[in-house]
Amino acid sequence: MAEKGIVCETVQIDLANGEQFSDAYKAINPDCVVPALELDDGSYLSEILAICYYLEAQHPEPALLGASDKERAQILMWNGKVEQQGLMAVADAFRNSAKGLKNRATTGPVSYPQIPELAERGRDRVEQFFHKLDGQLENNEFVAGDRYSIADISAMVAVDFAARIKMSLPDDVVNARRWYEAVSSRPSAAA
Amino acid sequence: MAEKGIVCETVQIDLANGEQFSDAYKAINPDCVVPALELDDGSYLSEILAICYYLEAQHPEPALLGASDKERAQILMWNGKVEQQGLMAVADAFRNSAKGLKNRATTGPVSYPQIPELAERGRDRVEQFFHKLDGQLENNEFVAGDRYSIADISAMVAVDFAARIKMSLPDDVVNARRWYEAVSSRPSAAA
Repeated sequence: MAEKGIVCETVQIDLANGEQFSDAYKAINPDCVVPALELDDGSYLSEILAICYYLEAQHPEPALLGASDKERAQILMWNGKVEQQGLMAVADAFRNSAKGLKNRATTGPVSYPQIPELAERGRDRVEQFFHKLDGQLENNEFVAGDRYSIADISAMVAVDFAARIKMSLPDDVVNARRWYEAVSSRPSAAA
Repeated sequence: MAEKGIVCETVQIDLANGEQFSDAYKAINPDCVVPALELDDGSYLSEILAICYYLEAQHPEPALLGASDKERAQILMWNGKVEQQGLMAVADAFRNSAKGLKNRATTGPVSYPQIPELAERGRDRVEQFFHKLDGQLENNEFVAGDRYSIADISAMVAVDFAARIKMSLPDDVVNARRWYEAVSSRPSAAA
C-alpha cells in the first residue's frame, strides 16, 4: 500500500492479547490471522497474495505483480518459493520455540503444542533460504528479476521476521546483503 | 490443462527413482519439485500457482482463476487456504510418516529426518480441513463460490492425496461429499 500510495483506514488487531480469536474478528476471518481487507461492498478478503492481487487490480501503478504475463508468472513463482522456503521456515522455527507460544505452534483457532524438532528444522531451512536468496540475487537486481515486486516484499519480511529467532543474513551472502540494504531503505519499508 | 483443452508435450520425471534430484532436472527447477512448464523461449516456470496463472493468461477460457477482480481475489484466497490447511497438512502427515521417505521429510535437495509429532499434527489438521471445506460448501456450489476454479482442483487433489495417509472425507461432511462427487466426475479429473 505504501509503495502504491494507497491510503486506507487501518484497524489494529491486538494479537498479543488474542483479539484475533474474538467472535468479532472470526466473523472477518475464521482462520484468525491478519491481515484482512474490507471491500466497498462490506465483504472481506484474507490471504496476503489475494489482497495484493486485488490492490494491484484497483491501483495498477507502480506494478508490484509484473507488467507482462511472463513477468507476473515469474513473480508469482518467486513469491511462492519465498513464502514456502523463507517465511514458513522462520514461522516453523519461531512458533515452535517461542516461550509465549507454548500451545500456539500453528496459527488458527486450534491449539497445537510446540514441536522442538520442527523449530530446529526451521532454523536449518532459514539458513538454506539465505543462501538461495543470495544465489538468485547474484545475477538479478531483485528477487524475481529486474523489477521490484511483492517477491521482494515477502523476502524482506522473511529476513526481518528472522530477527525473532535471532538469525540474520550471514556476512558471506554479499548479494543478498546488497539487496536487503536497497529494499529496506525504500520509504515504504518504514510504513 | 485438461479443463482448458490445452495440449502440451509432457515429460514424466521418475520421482520414485529420484530423477528430480538429477543435474538435468535441477537445471529446470533447483528446488527439485514437479511440475515445471517450459515456455516458448526455453525458460521454465515452477510453482503451481505461477504455472496456472500463465496458462490462464494464454488460454483464458474457461476461466479457472475468476472473471472479475473480486472473484479472482476470492479464488486466490481460497486456493491459499486450501494449500496451507489442506495440501500442506496432508504433506506433513505423509512425508513425516511414509516408510519410503525416512530422510525425505521435506521436498527439495536437502535431507531432513521425519518428525513423527508433525505427522500426527498433520493428520489432525486434515480432519479440521475436511470440516472447514464442508462448512464452506454448505452455502456454495464450489470452494470459492459459484464458479469452478483452481481452488476446487487444489482441494480435490488434497482429498485424493489424503488417501496416501488413509484418510477420506468422513460420512458426516455431506456438503464436501456432494462437492467431491461433482468435481471428481468431471472429465478433467481423469486426465
